[in-house]
Amino acid sequence: MRMYDLINKKKSGLSLTKEEITFIVNGFTSGEIPDYQMSAFLMAVCLKGMNKEETIAMTLAMAKSGDMLDLSAIEGVKVDKHSTGGVGDKTSLVLSPMVASLGVPVAKMSGRGLGHTGGTIDKLESFPGFSTAIPTDKFFDNVNKMKLAIVGQTANLAPADKKIYALRDVTATVDNISLIASSIMSKKIASGAEVIVLDVKTGSGAFMKTLDDSIALAEAMVEIGNGVGRETYAVITDMNQPLGRAVGNSIEVAEAIETLQGHGPEDLLDVSLTLGSYMLYGAKKADSVEKAREMLTKTIEDGSALNKLAEFVRAQGGDDSAVFDTNVFPKATIIEEVCADRDGYVTKIVTDEIGMTSLVLGGGRETKDSIIDLSVGLRIQKKLGDQVKKGDALATLYANDADKMKAAKERYLSAYTIEPVKPEPTKHIYGIVTKEGL
Amino acid sequence: MRMYDLINKKKSGLSLTKEEITFIVNGFTSGEIPDYQMSAFLMAVCLKGMNKEETIAMTLAMAKSGDMLDLSAIEGVKVDKHSTGGVGDKTSLVLSPMVASLGVPVAKMSGRGLGHTGGTIDKLESFPGFSTAIPTDKFFDNVNKMKLAIVGQTANLAPADKKIYALRDVTATVDNISLIASSIMSKKIASGAEVIVLDVKTGSGAFMKTLDDSIALAEAMVEIGNGVGRETYAVITDMNQPLGRAVGNSIEVAEAIETLQGHGPEDLLDVSLTLGSYMLYGAKKADSVEKAREMLTKTIEDGSALNKLAEFVRAQGGDDSAVFDTNVFPKATIIEEVCADRDGYVTKIVTDEIGMTSLVLGGGRETKDSIIDLSVGLRIQKKLGDQVKKGDALATLYANDADKMKAAKERYLSAYTIEPVKPEPTKHIYGIVTKEGL
Repeated sequence: MRMYDLINKKKSGLSLTKEEITFIVNGFTSGEIPDYQMSAFLMAVCLKGMNKEETIAMTLAMAKSGDMLDLSAIEGVKVDKHSTGGVGDKTSLVLSPMVASLGVPVAKMSGRGLGHTGGTIDKLESFPGFSTAIPTDKFFDNVNKMKLAIVGQTANLAPADKKIYALRDVTATVDNISLIASSIMSKKIASGAEVIVLDVKTGSGAFMKTLDDSIALAEAMVEIGNGVGRETYAVITDMNQPLGRAVGNSIEVAEAIETLQGHGPEDLLDVSLTLGSYMLYGAKKADSVEKAREMLTKTIEDGSALNKLAEFVRAQGGDDSAVFDTNVFPKATIIEEVCADRDGYVTKIVTDEIGMTSLVLGGGRETKDSIIDLSVGLRIQKKLGDQVKKGDALATLYANDADKMKAAKERYLSAYTIEPVKPEPTKHIYGIVTKEGL
Repeated sequence: MRMYDLINKKKSGLSLTKEEITFIVNGFTSGEIPDYQMSAFLMAVCLKGMNKEETIAMTLAMAKSGDMLDLSAIEGVKVDKHSTGGVGDKTSLVLSPMVASLGVPVAKMSGRGLGHTGGTIDKLESFPGFSTAIPTDKFFDNVNKMKLAIVGQTANLAPADKKIYALRDVTATVDNISLIASSIMSKKIASGAEVIVLDVKTGSGAFMKTLDDSIALAEAMVEIGNGVGRETYAVITDMNQPLGRAVGNSIEVAEAIETLQGHGPEDLLDVSLTLGSYMLYGAKKADSVEKAREMLTKTIEDGSALNKLAEFVRAQGGDDSAVFDTNVFPKATIIEEVCADRDGYVTKIVTDEIGMTSLVLGGGRETKDSIIDLSVGLRIQKKLGDQVKKGDALATLYANDADKMKAAKERYLSAYTIEPVKPEPTKHIYGIVTKEGL
């Protein structure tokens, strides 16, 4: 097999066999196939596409390029949830305790990563003493005992994906559905879950800006997952504005707690319940997603989800007092409002820019060495469709630096469009993709 | 300007500006743009194309990446002829003395290169003592005095093209008309000729196998040439069988001499006269190509072209006796015929394979260190459309090694298709492309 011929085949619009795709992934990972051949191949893939079989073959080859995690020490059906990423997305913090309180094991391996806020691990460090640096056997033990544990990612997951992604990132070959889907799914498959629930965000704050692209990505990932024997569901959720009202780290944890206390924002609750329902249904804890949703709702009403969160925080060394009183979290020193500069309705929010506002305040990482300020962030007062009068607060910003506050306020305001006519109401959820389709 | 954005632009099917194309060529040549970005760009070009302005910009940037030859020391209009390459192509040897004998300067710089036979320089070394290692001032002096000289290429012509071609060659990005055209034309433009006549071969022995592709390439090159102020013509000539009957080195020189003596093969004469007519017309030595053709024909009839060849060979240190008696050339020791294995008509010749037969005999270079045997090669007896009886000689092969002879005979025979029905007659010339089009 020669890489030249395989590039040529893809360039001509032909499909490659599983063996050919595996040859390419393995050859590039080992260094036998040079990057200039791989980038020509990736460009041909972007312009000619890959079919379902090729995409599955690529995903599997990338998954198998590193550690394939063995979760057999955990009792029950292992369920994983993954989000394509958005602003104000704290669903993991909400649904993990709910699902765990119903006996479904939630064994999360998380990284820190870059972004407008920290990752789930960073956010959980809002609880003083909380640590994810626990040994693997203790991690498995915790999951078996209380169904919920989070550990920092130490495994070498899908190094082929890492190497291919780095090349795509500098050769303008990122935006192909098959490549995006196989990149995400290779890591999920290597992570060992039997059931995978995907939260595919769509809109101005999502990687996929259009609904069509989001559906295509969801369908591709569900095809891959089921194609390799992992029960996979995708929920397409709105990201034309931040999810909930809180953006930041401890601010988001507080909102997750409020949601488990029964007074969280409606959109966050709806998305969390929907994702959680598919986790429960996939784990065979409920006969239908409707039944699963009822069960999850009850964990909020009876306090079992909130108690599960507290138990989990304590088990990993954290002070759980904020679970019952979010005022315990340290406060930023400068608190100011961003106010509307005209009357009207909020018709558009450039959601990426709200994320950038959090980053500007110090709530996220610009480089991997950045230090996150857990107390800064923002609380949104006016969301899409809300009527505003000039001078009304659009959001409250929390900062520890006056210059950052100034920059953040300008950035926040410029993300809003206020117009005289009330817009159509927005949806939280656009559809569910199962192996039967949308 | 960022290469990433330019790759993305081309991937999206947009056109790049002259400045952007120049940035890419210069950046890649200097090493600032890495090969993995360049190969992604080249693949995008293959799949999305380049327009006329982009192709011209790329050609000029590549031409200017190295030496731009100054031919101003040569009197008269400098005319260059270039062939895209074929089997048995000895038109340079025929038309150069004809054109020179009419006062048009022919200043050739030639390389040796790889192929089924040697280059023009190798072939001319069939004349004992002939050398192209002459100093530049002597070269110019010879051209001014007798209008014909050939020197080995020492200039650093279009290094960007060399570097880009090497990358295309390993990334399956060779077969794009714009890239092929700009590669050829960048070197021609750097070579300094004011008038460029292109011989674009088409058929089984040509780089372009189909007439449509050959026309497209011819049009692209004529557009580039005229676009940068060089008067450019392209003649599309047949390569569904070797040109003439001789394939080899001294064997081809002998056939060129026979043609200048007035008894060469009709197709070789026709193609040489056509190409030569455009050279003469372009150099303003004739009012029309018809008139030019008459003038050229006369140089054969009156012996002036043959005398010019002899004068030129002597001027570069060669023994010119073979110009008047081709039997002087050294003969290969083994001479055998390849015979038809059935009755019928020659309906198809895999022309590339006839070239390979010459290579197998030792007449060409497989690697740049190969030593060429000038005496070996073949003379074709039966061409397309000829009727043959089983046992008739299809060709005479000349070898100095029995094993090579055996392998070459098999290879030759397998290149022929002999069928019962007489095929349509073949053309020598399919069309002329000028700046007005085909």
